[in-house]
Amino acid sequence: MNEFALIETHFKRLSDRTGALLSAREPELPADLGIGDDCALMRVPDGMQLAVSSDTLVAGVHFPGQATPFDIGYKALAVNLSDLAAMGATPAWFSLCVTLQDQSEDWITAFCEGMAAVTQGSPIQLVGGDTTRGPLSICVQVMGVVPAGQALTRSGARPGDEVYVSGCVGEAALGLALALDPQAAQWQQALDHPHLLARLHRPTPRVALGQALRGIASACIDVSDGLLADLNHVLRASQVGAELELDLIPVAAGQDRMISITAGDDYELCFTAPAHARSQVIALAQSLSLPVSMIGCISKAQGLRDQDNQALTPAGYQHF
Amino acid sequence: MNEFALIETHFKRLSDRTGALLSAREPELPADLGIGDDCALMRVPDGMQLAVSSDTLVAGVHFPGQATPFDIGYKALAVNLSDLAAMGATPAWFSLCVTLQDQSEDWITAFCEGMAAVTQGSPIQLVGGDTTRGPLSICVQVMGVVPAGQALTRSGARPGDEVYVSGCVGEAALGLALALDPQAAQWQQALDHPHLLARLHRPTPRVALGQALRGIASACIDVSDGLLADLNHVLRASQVGAELELDLIPVAAGQDRMISITAGDDYELCFTAPAHARSQVIALAQSLSLPVSMIGCISKAQGLRDQDNQALTPAGYQHF
Repeated sequence: MNEFALIETHFKRLSDRTGALLSAREPELPADLGIGDDCALMRVPDGMQLAVSSDTLVAGVHFPGQATPFDIGYKALAVNLSDLAAMGATPAWFSLCVTLQDQSEDWITAFCEGMAAVTQGSPIQLVGGDTTRGPLSICVQVMGVVPAGQALTRSGARPGDEVYVSGCVGEAALGLALALDPQAAQWQQALDHPHLLARLHRPTPRVALGQALRGIASACIDVSDGLLADLNHVLRASQVGAELELDLIPVAAGQDRMISITAGDDYELCFTAPAHARSQVIALAQSLSLPVSMIGCISKAQGLRDQDNQALTPAGYQHF
Repeated sequence: MNEFALIETHFKRLSDRTGALLSAREPELPADLGIGDDCALMRVPDGMQLAVSSDTLVAGVHFPGQATPFDIGYKALAVNLSDLAAMGATPAWFSLCVTLQDQSEDWITAFCEGMAAVTQGSPIQLVGGDTTRGPLSICVQVMGVVPAGQALTRSGARPGDEVYVSGCVGEAALGLALALDPQAAQWQQALDHPHLLARLHRPTPRVALGQALRGIASACIDVSDGLLADLNHVLRASQVGAELELDLIPVAAGQDRMISITAGDDYELCFTAPAHARSQVIALAQSLSLPVSMIGCISKAQGLRDQDNQALTPAGYQHF
């Protein structure tokens, strides 16, 4: 089967807008021209900015051999949506460049089903890409829209702002330990193993949270490299520091606290907001049924410190 | 050196708009927010559509081992710009996802210089991407803008339209034969070897031609898979056929005609235009100092035939 037939058969369903959960207040943005020409053509509504991010997943580097094709498709799209979430953008379109080694049609079918599962929660339309032969890797580029001037950047944190994180960090790292080692000590513990493996393989992009934080958060990032490392990106971009209350950080049950706050792949949002906005943050967390924890505050003095004024090393996952 | 430092050092220059040849009638479109946040943010001017395309180049599949890092960088960006050219779009931004095996800093420097060389002719700004470790491959996504409704799609060819191709086809294939085999018979011929190798490694995206064809051409595609195969994409999308005068097709000196019209990688534009527009096509070709040849006409009867009514097989490069 040549690449055209493969795309026709398997990727077509991703080019329809199948999702049903699009928030009523956001515009639907079907492409004017989708897959099948030299370019896709889309309209960005007046008064909106285009938000773009891309990420590559390489076999053996970004997903363990145990990951199913469904997981790989799911995660490749989900981690990119997480970047849109971190900007407060509404997902609209994505491109998909897949390099396949010797994957079967069954593999490709399951891979596409994984991607389609993500689009159920966050409607987004496949508009292009390509399929090539080579070592397995997946490159996704997502495009979204955000009202002009309202995107959540990394550079807006101010002294006195409070630091928040959604959900719980360290679960994906615990899932990875389980996935990589069938003899791992964690298998013997009374942990929620399916949940931890799902956190690793099928992270939930916090799209609705990001959108709800527009006008409330002063800065935002998604936790891909590790909480400390990612928060440090915000601190550097904003030219500020932070003091964290380590005990307030929600970490995975059964996981070491320091590992939890330096391990990556959780795709929670870490954000800052002025102290006066705390009740708004609590209210929107409740409305989204998503735990959000206040874990520290922004300081004028640069660097990252704990509640005892001890310096914290912003260690994180080094991709390179 | 970690990925952040690599990007900082080598890719920063691609995120500036350094090109000087932007046509005065096209808008400059610097990104509102470039590299360094979760997403880049851009504005698409009112009345314009966003045009998006992406392509992956895999080592050993899309470029021969002899290709220099400069060539690889050049070609990865140029072939994507060629897709914008085929839509008549104005290049604006691009993302770059690079997977590196064990490439040196010198390699990366030369790779970026190759990309920068393309941006001299077609100003375009790097706005994001990532760097990962794995088997060498390069995924580029380009974004451009086109006045709404004026893009050159594949579906607009009508019976009676004339078929054109820019430049000369088959030169890249001849360059590939030279690059792959130091003993190739072509080395003994009085050919312009440097030109042929440049056609293979450093194709020229016909961006200005594509823009100039807006309002004139009825359909357009770039010749990446081979003239017959790509023209056939237009015919199928437009639900028409074509009759070609094979003798009118400009092919590489020293190359077989049938190889020339079925070989890919030339990145010329193949387009159709109504017969009454012929003088306009000739005039714009002259103004761009780019040869454009009328090679046949569109017929109501589907399929591809030569001047003797013999069916032509739309063979082309099969990526898969």
